[in-house]
Amino acid sequence: MEDDALILDLQPLPDGIDERLAAQLTFIAEADRLKTVLRASPLAAADRRENDAEHSWHLALMVVLLAEYADAPIDVGHAVKLVVVHDLVEVYAGDSPVYDPQAVLDQQAREEAAADRLFSLLPADQAREIRELWDEFEAGATPEARFGKGIDRLQPMLLNWLAGGGTWSMPGATEARVRAREAGVVAASAALGDAAGLMVDEGVRRGWIRTSEG
Amino acid sequence: MEDDALILDLQPLPDGIDERLAAQLTFIAEADRLKTVLRASPLAAADRRENDAEHSWHLALMVVLLAEYADAPIDVGHAVKLVVVHDLVEVYAGDSPVYDPQAVLDQQAREEAAADRLFSLLPADQAREIRELWDEFEAGATPEARFGKGIDRLQPMLLNWLAGGGTWSMPGATEARVRAREAGVVAASAALGDAAGLMVDEGVRRGWIRTSEG
Repeated sequence: MEDDALILDLQPLPDGIDERLAAQLTFIAEADRLKTVLRASPLAAADRRENDAEHSWHLALMVVLLAEYADAPIDVGHAVKLVVVHDLVEVYAGDSPVYDPQAVLDQQAREEAAADRLFSLLPADQAREIRELWDEFEAGATPEARFGKGIDRLQPMLLNWLAGGGTWSMPGATEARVRAREAGVVAASAALGDAAGLMVDEGVRRGWIRTSEG
Repeated sequence: MEDDALILDLQPLPDGIDERLAAQLTFIAEADRLKTVLRASPLAAADRRENDAEHSWHLALMVVLLAEYADAPIDVGHAVKLVVVHDLVEVYAGDSPVYDPQAVLDQQAREEAAADRLFSLLPADQAREIRELWDEFEAGATPEARFGKGIDRLQPMLLNWLAGGGTWSMPGATEARVRAREAGVVAASAALGDAAGLMVDEGVRRGWIRTSEG
């Protein structure tokens, strides 16, 4: 967050665009940065890591396709909106890999600061609206947020499975920590939780997940 | 489409996953390929081209943020679903840059074949449902599809603007063809169409868009 330049400073909008829309386009241009924030997860279809924008899209697709497994009824459109915005603050805060103990230490403070900075680019009413969606996802208390968070746990498990390890082989990953992620899937959906459990069971059996530290 | 291998063949799912869910996970794994399909558009935040998954996420975000400008009332959640699935067939059909006259010649036939192949991975009821979303977007006849298509026209214009040219400098791009894309924005929203028009006007003035062939 050392650099205050905005993406739109590259090429200020032409004159004549209404102030409200210009603020929204400024935010939309800034969001382009999410395509450059790398996660720890490996892609299945290419030999590189996934970025946040791709990840957010994949979650949105999964929410549409797997909504039938939500244990509480969900408004699919609302759940999709939540996952579309859930990682936006990482344009400034960066990704915090769950199996990296250093990264998660100050994650909340970094993300709160990023949210204040990023959302303030929007018109005030919309800044509140997007902030509320982000807060709702983070709290995980509504059926849609719980389901979105469950899918956000399941998707990297599927990528790890396809990679034969992936982030499961990071130094900080142990079976107990992977099981804690699995619990987030179970909380959203018993059926999806069962599938995640089978992947973790078999991942442990194959030695892709360590049963203890070190 | 010469290679029939599925992403999931890399690492077949563990035993015990229900047949319906296994089909859905097979589709979700196959969709990972969308992250490797490059569009012609340049990112603003990095020196590389955009991929289809990132693009689809950016459209979803724009639909959420710009829905207020839709000239006909839209169900935002439904419009977001449309843009999330609208490029899926490109996992097999590839991207067809709009300013590449060769690519667009057989685009429809390639995409129909890809849709048949890809959607058939899903359980039959869901294959129909996703196919209907894709058909709805392609036809552009509902308010949500018209708005989604308008956003799909506006987003690359914004990237071109930020790049000071982008795909506007492709050999096949002329002002007339760029104006034809602008018309897709106007059809969705007069306000967004005005903003697109200002970018194109100024792009022509700066020489980023050619007024005629060659």
